[in-house]
Amino acid sequence: SMDLLNDVRPKDFTHPLMVVVLGASGDLAKKKTYPALFGLYCRELLPQDTLIYGYARSHIELSEFRKKIGSYLKGDENKKKAFLDLCFYHSGAYDKKEAYDEFNKILVDAESKMVKGSNNRLFYMAIPPSIFIDVAKGIKGSLISSSGWSRVIVEKPFGRDLASSRELISELKKLFPEKDLFRIDHYLGKEMVQNLMVLRFANAVFEPLWSKSHISSISITFKEDIGTEGRGGYFDQFGIIRDVMQNHLLQVLSLVAMEPPVSMSAEDITNEKVKLLRSIQPLRLDELVLGQFVGSKDGKYPGYLDDEGVPKDSKTATFASQVFHVNNPRWRGIPFILKCGKALDQRKTEIRIQFKGPDNFLFSDVDRNELVMRIQPGEAVYLKLLSKKPGLNNTIEQTELDLSYRSRFENLDLPDAYERLILDSIRGDHNLFVRDDELDVAWQIFTPLLEQIESLKVIPEKYEFGTRGPASADELAQKMGYVRSKQYSWPGQSKF
Amino acid sequence: SMDLLNDVRPKDFTHPLMVVVLGASGDLAKKKTYPALFGLYCRELLPQDTLIYGYARSHIELSEFRKKIGSYLKGDENKKKAFLDLCFYHSGAYDKKEAYDEFNKILVDAESKMVKGSNNRLFYMAIPPSIFIDVAKGIKGSLISSSGWSRVIVEKPFGRDLASSRELISELKKLFPEKDLFRIDHYLGKEMVQNLMVLRFANAVFEPLWSKSHISSISITFKEDIGTEGRGGYFDQFGIIRDVMQNHLLQVLSLVAMEPPVSMSAEDITNEKVKLLRSIQPLRLDELVLGQFVGSKDGKYPGYLDDEGVPKDSKTATFASQVFHVNNPRWRGIPFILKCGKALDQRKTEIRIQFKGPDNFLFSDVDRNELVMRIQPGEAVYLKLLSKKPGLNNTIEQTELDLSYRSRFENLDLPDAYERLILDSIRGDHNLFVRDDELDVAWQIFTPLLEQIESLKVIPEKYEFGTRGPASADELAQKMGYVRSKQYSWPGQSKF
Amino acid sequence: SMDLLNDVRPKDFTHPLMVVVLGASGDLAKKKTYPALFGLYCRELLPQDTLIYGYARSHIELSEFRKKIGSYLKGDENKKKAFLDLCFYHSGAYDKKEAYDEFNKILVDAESKMVKGSNNRLFYMAIPPSIFIDVAKGIKGSLISSSGWSRVIVEKPFGRDLASSRELISELKKLFPEKDLFRIDHYLGKEMVQNLMVLRFANAVFEPLWSKSHISSISITFKEDIGTEGRGGYFDQFGIIRDVMQNHLLQVLSLVAMEPPVSMSAEDITNEKVKLLRSIQPLRLDELVLGQFVGSKDGKYPGYLDDEGVPKDSKTATFASQVFHVNNPRWRGIPFILKCGKALDQRKTEIRIQFKGPDNFLFSDVDRNELVMRIQPGEAVYLKLLSKKPGLNNTIEQTELDLSYRSRFENLDLPDAYERLILDSIRGDHNLFVRDDELDVAWQIFTPLLEQIESLKVIPEKYEFGTRGPASADELAQKMGYVRSKQYSWPGQSKF
Amino acid sequence: SMDLLNDVRPKDFTHPLMVVVLGASGDLAKKKTYPALFGLYCRELLPQDTLIYGYARSHIELSEFRKKIGSYLKGDENKKKAFLDLCFYHSGAYDKKEAYDEFNKILVDAESKMVKGSNNRLFYMAIPPSIFIDVAKGIKGSLISSSGWSRVIVEKPFGRDLASSRELISELKKLFPEKDLFRIDHYLGKEMVQNLMVLRFANAVFEPLWSKSHISSISITFKEDIGTEGRGGYFDQFGIIRDVMQNHLLQVLSLVAMEPPVSMSAEDITNEKVKLLRSIQPLRLDELVLGQFVGSKDGKYPGYLDDEGVPKDSKTATFASQVFHVNNPRWRGIPFILKCGKALDQRKTEIRIQFKGPDNFLFSDVDRNELVMRIQPGEAVYLKLLSKKPGLNNTIEQTELDLSYRSRFENLDLPDAYERLILDSIRGDHNLFVRDDELDVAWQIFTPLLEQIESLKVIPEKYEFGTRGPASADELAQKMGYVRSKQYSWPGQSKF
Repeated sequence: SMDLLNDVRPKDFTHPLMVVVLGASGDLAKKKTYPALFGLYCRELLPQDTLIYGYARSHIELSEFRKKIGSYLKGDENKKKAFLDLCFYHSGAYDKKEAYDEFNKILVDAESKMVKGSNNRLFYMAIPPSIFIDVAKGIKGSLISSSGWSRVIVEKPFGRDLASSRELISELKKLFPEKDLFRIDHYLGKEMVQNLMVLRFANAVFEPLWSKSHISSISITFKEDIGTEGRGGYFDQFGIIRDVMQNHLLQVLSLVAMEPPVSMSAEDITNEKVKLLRSIQPLRLDELVLGQFVGSKDGKYPGYLDDEGVPKDSKTATFASQVFHVNNPRWRGIPFILKCGKALDQRKTEIRIQFKGPDNFLFSDVDRNELVMRIQPGEAVYLKLLSKKPGLNNTIEQTELDLSYRSRFENLDLPDAYERLILDSIRGDHNLFVRDDELDVAWQIFTPLLEQIESLKVIPEKYEFGTRGPASADELAQKMGYVRSKQYSWPGQSKF
Repeated sequence: SMDLLNDVRPKDFTHPLMVVVLGASGDLAKKKTYPALFGLYCRELLPQDTLIYGYARSHIELSEFRKKIGSYLKGDENKKKAFLDLCFYHSGAYDKKEAYDEFNKILVDAESKMVKGSNNRLFYMAIPPSIFIDVAKGIKGSLISSSGWSRVIVEKPFGRDLASSRELISELKKLFPEKDLFRIDHYLGKEMVQNLMVLRFANAVFEPLWSKSHISSISITFKEDIGTEGRGGYFDQFGIIRDVMQNHLLQVLSLVAMEPPVSMSAEDITNEKVKLLRSIQPLRLDELVLGQFVGSKDGKYPGYLDDEGVPKDSKTATFASQVFHVNNPRWRGIPFILKCGKALDQRKTEIRIQFKGPDNFLFSDVDRNELVMRIQPGEAVYLKLLSKKPGLNNTIEQTELDLSYRSRFENLDLPDAYERLILDSIRGDHNLFVRDDELDVAWQIFTPLLEQIESLKVIPEKYEFGTRGPASADELAQKMGYVRSKQYSWPGQSKF
Repeated sequence: SMDLLNDVRPKDFTHPLMVVVLGASGDLAKKKTYPALFGLYCRELLPQDTLIYGYARSHIELSEFRKKIGSYLKGDENKKKAFLDLCFYHSGAYDKKEAYDEFNKILVDAESKMVKGSNNRLFYMAIPPSIFIDVAKGIKGSLISSSGWSRVIVEKPFGRDLASSRELISELKKLFPEKDLFRIDHYLGKEMVQNLMVLRFANAVFEPLWSKSHISSISITFKEDIGTEGRGGYFDQFGIIRDVMQNHLLQVLSLVAMEPPVSMSAEDITNEKVKLLRSIQPLRLDELVLGQFVGSKDGKYPGYLDDEGVPKDSKTATFASQVFHVNNPRWRGIPFILKCGKALDQRKTEIRIQFKGPDNFLFSDVDRNELVMRIQPGEAVYLKLLSKKPGLNNTIEQTELDLSYRSRFENLDLPDAYERLILDSIRGDHNLFVRDDELDVAWQIFTPLLEQIESLKVIPEKYEFGTRGPASADELAQKMGYVRSKQYSWPGQSKF
Repeated sequence: SMDLLNDVRPKDFTHPLMVVVLGASGDLAKKKTYPALFGLYCRELLPQDTLIYGYARSHIELSEFRKKIGSYLKGDENKKKAFLDLCFYHSGAYDKKEAYDEFNKILVDAESKMVKGSNNRLFYMAIPPSIFIDVAKGIKGSLISSSGWSRVIVEKPFGRDLASSRELISELKKLFPEKDLFRIDHYLGKEMVQNLMVLRFANAVFEPLWSKSHISSISITFKEDIGTEGRGGYFDQFGIIRDVMQNHLLQVLSLVAMEPPVSMSAEDITNEKVKLLRSIQPLRLDELVLGQFVGSKDGKYPGYLDDEGVPKDSKTATFASQVFHVNNPRWRGIPFILKCGKALDQRKTEIRIQFKGPDNFLFSDVDRNELVMRIQPGEAVYLKLLSKKPGLNNTIEQTELDLSYRSRFENLDLPDAYERLILDSIRGDHNLFVRDDELDVAWQIFTPLLEQIESLKVIPEKYEFGTRGPASADELAQKMGYVRSKQYSWPGQSKF
């Protein structure tokens, strides 16, 4: 309804907006940035007069650029065409002030033909980390809007470790105030991740259960069923811990585990996330399992080392499972088991809260309650529950209280995480972005572990493409008290 | 499977069983006792050699008796026929020893042709309270098995008040030991009522929420959408409180609210139920709403006073809502709102646990969580939950975690409550029957209230057939802190 | 004040009372029964017209009897004399009806000279278990009052095991209704034991702490600093477990650990005690330490085997420490460490509730909070607490919140446990006595352990007279998670 | 011991320290600053080579200055003399750079004769708020140490409201980094206030009780038994809310109520205090009682308006009681009753935590448990407890678990709050000082209330000198659920 749109639309809706995509010819831009902008366009959530300028080194003809971009857009053809008409491209160097000055002239010229109002500019840095600072300086030196706001969206990786991250942060800080920086962790834009705050804090039934008194372990699992698929060369510089665990999974952990904030403002929520992260004990190598996938037995799927660009002696992990301990009254003694991997048996991301057995002694050896929040695919929340099997016998059966989005909500149209995040940056809402001190403490947590792995040359365990990953990971979870239920599979699973 | 049957079957399966239905020509026998016996017969849960003898005053031909009984049985015609072949009938006086002696000869004679073994006898007293004691004496004096057990199933009403109930109990006690008496409250045989123990005590997630700290109120509601339908004359002697609240609803209350027992034995569970009932504060007239239905405006449905046999000036309540307070640490200050009525807007029985609002101040004025256990029809458990409405907006929506039996369990075949109870009496399991001290304390709770109603000649509020009942009942619930959610209706409802 | 006396005095104060002490010439009678009766006499709490008749086999002159009795009384000489004037003695057989009949005549004769009223009779059985039943039959057959109540006080041992206890119970049950039997466990008469109910249930601050969530272990310790002192022959038939642990310490345990009762009535409290005892897991031999004392090194104090009457190869334990586990939601996983012994380093009985460390991580390795209830000597309650040491440094120090009776209450005059118990039996108050099913379940708990000890011929560990007992006991406690604080001693200790 | 001293001593102990007392001729300097410095001197906690320079406008001879200072010092005469030898005085303008430059020369000259090392300078601003900024600029412009640290101690009042406080903060921020500013609230230096952290977080028994579930109300009370005593003119500009409640009592409140911090660092503790303060609901005028004292009936003690310098129509409150509500999960619904006043019946400051009644129904209408932390005088912690009155009756009595410093700790030598605070500033420890954002939120809380009081011209209730204050204050407390116990007075009270 109109009301709803008004509610969601940026309040700058009537002002002209110039979106500048730096690194417009790259993969991220094509696959994520432009499709998300198109999504917002279709929902009529971009400001009424918006132009999108791509910028990159390579010379590309506009028509060809539009074709390339267009090939990733899905939806109505007319809308696609209309959207592409708003997209332009300019090539230039990343490290020359003159190049940016020239680009600015083009922007100013274009803006002069747009509606009158504050000329807001949104810079989306879809570029490799090596040129972050150059580009940031270019923006600061030449591209800042003279009449509206200028905001910068930054993509991970935000450094390789604490030192490099701090350097990046401090360099950016010199150029832009924190309020104009939007560090994306696209997991924060996922529907279920956002729902986490509502589930935890709008429902009175969860908070009393949300502690060591009742919870036995919390698993946060990210599984991909594909390998590196030709991007192994790039991946090999980072490995799965930096690529997934240090950012996405740690973000999810901090939202699952943090204390209730004073308010729902970005500032207050991030304060709590930082407080939580600061309570994490040093990570221990003996609570870590690393894995690297090999080709499937049937030869169908290649191993990691088979990927072109991956050094043949690479020790880079494509799978990691690490136990986290949070030193605060709520979580004392409860393991958080974070697990992520490529080339596994299925694709899913989920939070699995396993409860302790009941306190009484009336039912022995029954399966445990679990609250599962499924982030992707197939957003769902379900609570595994024991129930009397209907009938004259007195058997107990594992069943569940279920809320699957697709069966509950009709005509479900879930926006992509990037759509939400770009929209929020236009609206100036920092809620779903990563604050500088948050990033800093995340690196404080991981850097000593990463250094140990490197200095001790820890060799990852091999696992076959398409399996559950290294057996040691299941053993680690079991050692931490996690109990897999024997014969249960969630009925909702079949739908995906 | 065979295993399952073995598990459920009485261990006396190979011994002969004589079921004696006293009052065999009455309504209860036809509508409940025989159909339940037939159900057990079809499931092959009656002992292999079972005969069923009806006994009553009226002279009826066996063929006619079987026809009458048969008209209430549902299922396979061959099985029906085979079952009726096991049914016999004998007429005799209720108050003459000779009559019972004669009947016993017939039984002994029949038993002599059955398989060898202990000759067990199950007496089902489907008779009005006025002849209880006579019949019990008859059984005791003439019909006790000489080689097996003799058990007596008794139906409510167990008296009209504390004095009459105590008399009944003490008279029966002189005749039979407690272990051979089975007082039926058929609500205890309902699937969801039995599941209550499993839900509460096999699931670690419920117990921590199950107290005044988190619960705001508990409503136990019984609604019928029919009136007295010609049985008003009989009903008028008792009224809705004696007919439904004092037994069925109080049983449900005690199971919902009791402390965890030492074991799942009948003895231990009843100990806890009695302890709970003893903690109930005296009922207060100002926390009671009484109602009596009048005909529907469209004239389609008659009022209570229109029912033949109901005195025109009857003050008997067909609707009652009473608040209960339990004086123990778990429930201090939490109202239990029991409500039952005839001629209302729908038919359902359910337990509704409404939780308090969340403890934090992040979400204001949101609907409250509720855990609903639906006893009939459409057995279900669901937890009303707030969730972020999927999409770019940040709206919160009432939704639910749902477990509906019919959608979760395939080929669901729920036995009738009477089936289970008769089976349990054959198995000697007292779990689902009412113990003498339990009955006593139930009458201790209600008798002062009933006496007040009568001595003060409280006039019930009129309500129209087919409505929610007296408006005062909703006001009472609201005064007790119950908050109806504004625009929610359970999607599962539509299925019934 | 008069008011207070009225409150405490038996309501039968104006009726004549005949106290009959069976076994009047024995140790118990002299040391406990008569001094307690004298105490009540001095407090003016015995009915106004009371006579005390001793009965035993031996012929003793009244004057000599009075002298013997008198030698154990302490207090005002005039009162002593007046009291002894109320004491008479009659010798007779324990196993002959005629003897009792004759004795009854004497009693009736004496009663005829007392004030008019119901002639109440209180029988105190200060006799060995071997003649319990004979004497009980004698009372029942000849001595029952024809116009008032007749109550029987029974002293432990109530059997040696489950079988013998059940026999005793069932024999007594044939003779007296439960309401007229008063089984004494004199620990229930101790001031601090009675205070336990008040402390636990009148103070809102204890109940929230009283569970596995906050408590780490509960120790109940009974220490004597004397040996068997010539009574070893008798002791050797029972051993310390039967003598102290199975009754006194188990009573204390059940009061410490039970759930809140429905009311403070004896019936309801005992129901909870029985429920608690029924939740105790089978005792394990590997959680038991047995000890037997040897003479002190300096030769001053003899060993157990040195005691005359003790068989030289006796394996009887004079020290025992056993861990109890209570299978209920409140206590799951928390050890109750019961310890009792003779010939140890000090004399004291206390309950020591050790709490877990704080949930936060702000103070590491600090001593733990303990709540200590000291039963004897020097009744006190204190809570060991950490506090900042006053001054400019930031040291933390173990200190305590203290309530010592002697320093808090002026002119403290604590009645002996026996005084209270005899008074309660006159008042008909069963609160502090042991019910038959309670006794039964106590023996159910201990009998398998005692049988194992005997069949496996477990050899007790030797320990020196005057020490802390076997080292294994401290190790057992430590294994159970009990942490002794390093350098703390309770300042209150010095006063005793 | 030496060890202890080493622990407490500043690590800069061997470096020269110049203490500069600005406003050295004023009351605060004489009564608090110099005596505290003398205390540290006597304890050998000032750096070995320390000089103390007073600075003020008035010309005073050194000998006279020393005499004046000396008259407020207590202790050994030799030490006094030695200490005064370290004290110097220089007069100069507060608002002239040249004056400060000249003063600096003197300091540099003096420092040149001290031991070699970093020349640390501690500036103690014992001056009225009107010249704060001038003096701060003077320090910054001329007096900063060239080789060591320069720290500034600031005394309240920090403004009169949010606007003036923000101006002060921002002006000071321009001159000094937060790490060099030490805002004193001397209540934070009190022994019991510091002990609060230890009591709450080192003892496992308090945290579980520390919430709305168990606490009924928390009162923080400051009572003086003297009036304004000639200082009424100054006091009248501020009133009791600004003088005591907005700083001292709010500090105590935030320490009592805050969540456990991540660590015991000043930063983390202050984060929690700020979070707590931000959760305080707007103060309500209808939950405020204001009072102004009048002379005692016997004429002995004058009223506030009798004080010279107080305007005859002054509406300034000398007594205030305000209820605070903290909007977080821990404290939802629990009132914090802050009360402060002059000319009352006694002198004391205490925190009184009143618990709810017990959850069970076994003891009705008993007095409530209270945990009292007495800040001054007579530091003590005691827990009001119900206990069985020793003896044969079953009366319950209010008693207490007690920890009174003076009876527990021998030779107790409690340093003054100022001593600790000055020592901490020398040690660079911010723990006990007020951070800028903390001050800001304190003013956010109080400013709207103060503005309402002023704009509505609220007239304070009169109360007699030497009484409990306005009766309305007791009524307000009662309305908030506080229950005064009937006949109890703490035995410890008598000792002060």
